[in-house]
Amino acid sequence: MVASSGFELQVTVPSGSSVKLETETTLLSSVAAWMRCLISNLRSKVSKFARRVWKIGADDPRKVIHCMKVGLALALVSVFYYTRPLYEGVGGTAMWAVMTVVVVFEFTVGGSLYKGLNRATATLCAGALAFGIHWLAIKSGKTTDHIILGASVFVLSSVATFSRFIPAIKTRFDYGITIFILTFNLVAVSGYRVEQLLTLVQWRFCTITIGISICLTVCVVIRPVWAGEELHNLIICNLERLAESIAETVAECLKEEGSTTAECKQKSTSKVQGYKGVLNSKASEDSLANLARWEPSHGRFSFQHPWRQYLKIGAAMRHCAYCIESLNSCISMENQQPPDSVKNHLAVFYTKLSSECSKVLKEIANSFRSMKRSSSVDYLVEEMKNTAEELQTALSSLPQEATAVIMETLPLITVASLLIEISQRVEGVVDEVKGITSLSCFKAADREKLKLQNKAISTMA
Amino acid sequence: MVASSGFELQVTVPSGSSVKLETETTLLSSVAAWMRCLISNLRSKVSKFARRVWKIGADDPRKVIHCMKVGLALALVSVFYYTRPLYEGVGGTAMWAVMTVVVVFEFTVGGSLYKGLNRATATLCAGALAFGIHWLAIKSGKTTDHIILGASVFVLSSVATFSRFIPAIKTRFDYGITIFILTFNLVAVSGYRVEQLLTLVQWRFCTITIGISICLTVCVVIRPVWAGEELHNLIICNLERLAESIAETVAECLKEEGSTTAECKQKSTSKVQGYKGVLNSKASEDSLANLARWEPSHGRFSFQHPWRQYLKIGAAMRHCAYCIESLNSCISMENQQPPDSVKNHLAVFYTKLSSECSKVLKEIANSFRSMKRSSSVDYLVEEMKNTAEELQTALSSLPQEATAVIMETLPLITVASLLIEISQRVEGVVDEVKGITSLSCFKAADREKLKLQNKAISTMA
Repeated sequence: MVASSGFELQVTVPSGSSVKLETETTLLSSVAAWMRCLISNLRSKVSKFARRVWKIGADDPRKVIHCMKVGLALALVSVFYYTRPLYEGVGGTAMWAVMTVVVVFEFTVGGSLYKGLNRATATLCAGALAFGIHWLAIKSGKTTDHIILGASVFVLSSVATFSRFIPAIKTRFDYGITIFILTFNLVAVSGYRVEQLLTLVQWRFCTITIGISICLTVCVVIRPVWAGEELHNLIICNLERLAESIAETVAECLKEEGSTTAECKQKSTSKVQGYKGVLNSKASEDSLANLARWEPSHGRFSFQHPWRQYLKIGAAMRHCAYCIESLNSCISMENQQPPDSVKNHLAVFYTKLSSECSKVLKEIANSFRSMKRSSSVDYLVEEMKNTAEELQTALSSLPQEATAVIMETLPLITVASLLIEISQRVEGVVDEVKGITSLSCFKAADREKLKLQNKAISTMA
Repeated sequence: MVASSGFELQVTVPSGSSVKLETETTLLSSVAAWMRCLISNLRSKVSKFARRVWKIGADDPRKVIHCMKVGLALALVSVFYYTRPLYEGVGGTAMWAVMTVVVVFEFTVGGSLYKGLNRATATLCAGALAFGIHWLAIKSGKTTDHIILGASVFVLSSVATFSRFIPAIKTRFDYGITIFILTFNLVAVSGYRVEQLLTLVQWRFCTITIGISICLTVCVVIRPVWAGEELHNLIICNLERLAESIAETVAECLKEEGSTTAECKQKSTSKVQGYKGVLNSKASEDSLANLARWEPSHGRFSFQHPWRQYLKIGAAMRHCAYCIESLNSCISMENQQPPDSVKNHLAVFYTKLSSECSKVLKEIANSFRSMKRSSSVDYLVEEMKNTAEELQTALSSLPQEATAVIMETLPLITVASLLIEISQRVEGVVDEVKGITSLSCFKAADREKLKLQNKAISTMA
């Protein structure tokens, strides 16, 4: 029994251990495989993320510079903090300078100015008001001061909060109102215990001013990013996108007709999709225009530059982009095998009209870039209108077979209708741009010669 | 000479004084008139402004309640401040509670939660990190601690600022990063002088937590505004706007054709213009969806409600709205006197198709409102498709006179083409809505009966 159990044991133990070893090795190897998989997964994710982050910096190096600027401004504030024995501990008011730099420093000069001026003004107003109310509360006696302070906190905070719902105030003073409520409450509430209220308000204002000065100096001196210039460039970029989008969409439409829809969709290049950028840029335009008016005169832009007018150009461009969107959907319409004769009859006018629209938009983009009135744009618009009329005439004289198979020619006819509408909307964009370029901040172009040259060329052609 | 001069004087003086008096009275009266004009101007401006402000409150009384809530939360913080002898002066950490309430309190619960959680987490992380680096700096000796602290301020601030440019981080943690930079700098810089760093970090975190608690309690308990519910309602509202816009635009188109364009434009009602609201609601949708995912389960919405999916519906609706915009421009096209026979031939299909589109959109709006899957929508979509096909057939069999005068019928044909496109885009909206309603958070409608009823009615008709 013992021997057999001993034998059994002898047999059992090695076999058990070998099984154990086997399972251990398989477990180990599977854990190792799992770890390897995890690491490679992690590595690929990290490298993907790193590439994305790198791309953000590489696409716009100003973003990297901005980060350095923030670091520098904060380092400057720290130096200021270390070297002044006046400021003791975090209880001291010097921390307001640090806080100001962190909160006020924005990517654009306009953003920093908006926040800085709002912060300084709101602190001053709220401090003075809180000081006045506090003085009144103390004068009124021991019982009523609680009520006066409490009521003033409640009423002023509520009213200030409500004023943020008024759009005109929201766009200009949103940040200022937050700071107003903050400062008023801090001073009114803390004043209950601290006697040196006036000193407190003074110190808070002083340190905030120091913070804002450091912030604005770094922001303006080292590679400044002006919101106004950004807006100006955005408008130019969008004008060019529209120009390319119109021309490419029509080219795509004429080229791809008859081929499969899927292919057509795949081939739609980034140029065709340019109008989508125009559709989505409303938010950027609004915010840039709001920040731009805080900026002083810089480069070619004066302090009173008509930034609000830029939004009108943006709206006109979106109006045009809606139509291009519809035009784009016409390309990908099914069952469009119009007779070749019809296609050939109209194609030449489509190409001509779209290239005229494109030319007009490029011309005003150039005139806008150089901030000079363009003298050739009127001529180009006239050409565009003439081509639109030619297209209408061509439609009236469609060959009989076209009208017979109306369903097959429907997309083509819709394209005509939309193109005519687009040319009218391009005129709308031109009108808005002319409205701005006629203002005193734009110079009249010395292009009479060019105009004559253009005419000469066109008559020769 | 004297007499004469006296006479002269006598004459001169009164006449001079009377002239003076006259000019004085005219000056006085003109000043009075000017003052009256100024006062009446001022009064009209003030009353106009007051009416506008009143309208903001009357249109959405929740805004007024929000303001009261902010006032209440601040009053509560003040009470907390007064009753605790722990907090002395503005140097005390209690002011962080006041500051937290001012900065964190937002209109929606999601907004307050986003800011509150970001603030608390960022304070904790930055505090711990700053404490660690500070400890390291002190250990490293008198000369190197400056360098370590300065370098850490520069590097961490720069890196944190850069991370705000990464869209995924920006949408979720923008505010948190600001607070991270702020807290890190405050603790790292101030720590140079204050010995009780750990106490400082603890206190800051505690008071911020108290501020956030007061803030969230007031925000959630008293008439809460949920970002999720706002988004849900916005989507429903936009679906209904689209539905009305399509039906009314076509009605307007058929009614006004042949009459003057100016009149037509004037008569375009607010219902027709509903699509414009859809075009402009991208920014609201994005921000509401971002805030909604911070909200806990509330009402019919669970914590994991698919808010991001709502944005897809929004995009599909805008896709549809672009086309309605083009359709709208067709109405106001000039030279549209199509032969009556053509108009009558097509009008019935236009009305039918637009009302089918409208019905489909209203049905999914209802299904979305009740958060139940609609069983009749498939049937309605089928109807809509059939009508679109009928319209295509009707176009193929246009009377001969229509194809002969193609220019006059061009707008009518474009309308057909756009209507067919719109019906396809409505289908796109339906697909997106169905994608959401098929998720587990929506219930299957018990509408099989209704479906059968509908079919019975349609077969009878």
